[in-house]
Amino acid sequence: MTSVNLSYPIGEYKPRESISKEQKDKWIQVLEEVPAKLKQAVEVMTDSQLDTPYRDGGWTVRQVVHHLADSHMNSYIRFKLSLTEETPAIRPYDEKAWSELKDSKTADPSGSLALLQELHGRWTALLRTLTDQQFKRGFYHPDTKEIITLENALGLYVWHSHHHIAHITELSRRMGWS
Amino acid sequence: MTSVNLSYPIGEYKPRESISKEQKDKWIQVLEEVPAKLKQAVEVMTDSQLDTPYRDGGWTVRQVVHHLADSHMNSYIRFKLSLTEETPAIRPYDEKAWSELKDSKTADPSGSLALLQELHGRWTALLRTLTDQQFKRGFYHPDTKEIITLENALGLYVWHSHHHIAHITELSRRMGWS
Repeated sequence: MTSVNLSYPIGEYKPRESISKEQKDKWIQVLEEVPAKLKQAVEVMTDSQLDTPYRDGGWTVRQVVHHLADSHMNSYIRFKLSLTEETPAIRPYDEKAWSELKDSKTADPSGSLALLQELHGRWTALLRTLTDQQFKRGFYHPDTKEIITLENALGLYVWHSHHHIAHITELSRRMGWS
Repeated sequence: MTSVNLSYPIGEYKPRESISKEQKDKWIQVLEEVPAKLKQAVEVMTDSQLDTPYRDGGWTVRQVVHHLADSHMNSYIRFKLSLTEETPAIRPYDEKAWSELKDSKTADPSGSLALLQELHGRWTALLRTLTDQQFKRGFYHPDTKEIITLENALGLYVWHSHHHIAHITELSRRMGWS
């Protein structure tokens, strides 16, 4: 597997002009099931497996799990900012530095797995109250200098979830752990 | 009870110049127990009790519970911004508008109660890894135009938790529900 595949095992998310209600409903369902999938991929791992980088120079499995909790809390907040302000500029954060914090490198993944389960529960409940018009609202990302609609942000975070889960399941497959 | 007491049943938080390790440890312990206390105050409430404002013109009990989850996720993120950037300006949010979202006014409180339980677990785990030096780091709030250290932010969110729990328990007492 080339290093590009190791970094992007499922490719990248491609924003779309508009997204059908059926597709959005499917994505919400998938987003709801992400925490259980992630848990399944890591819950039988030993500490040394959890502390194995998913690729050379990459995050460990433990760091990936804590990153998903951090990233998706930031995203849930960006959704609420977008629903209550007009195309708000969101607050970027240094995900590499967050992942180098002692807590991100040592804490048991169970806390972030449980947090993700409850967060995705609240997130999908919020998404199911949104009108098509609300899904067309968006936020501005100061780093990418782009506006992303909430319906594309939904697709992006379904991709982000599967992107990182694939890092873990591909590592397990290559190492013969699963 | 005067309207000032109804709004601020336990008064306001007063920042301190410096805070002992013993006091910080005690606050971390209290912060860990907040979600269970909040759950105890609301779990036997009927829907109509949950939809009762804690004071005239105030949020309902339901809105207060969802606000605590929103507010403390924002705070957890502010702690991590402060640990990875030099006195970062944080991103304010419109808490009144967040509390007027359909989800905040209708969703069952159990999701936010469970989220708070896991969030406070991760938050206190993070706090227990911090050195005294890290507790002296802080963030700048663009609305108040003040810098708050992380040790004072810890005290502030213990206060914020008890501030809102008191809104609920005082309402229950006045209404003869408890």
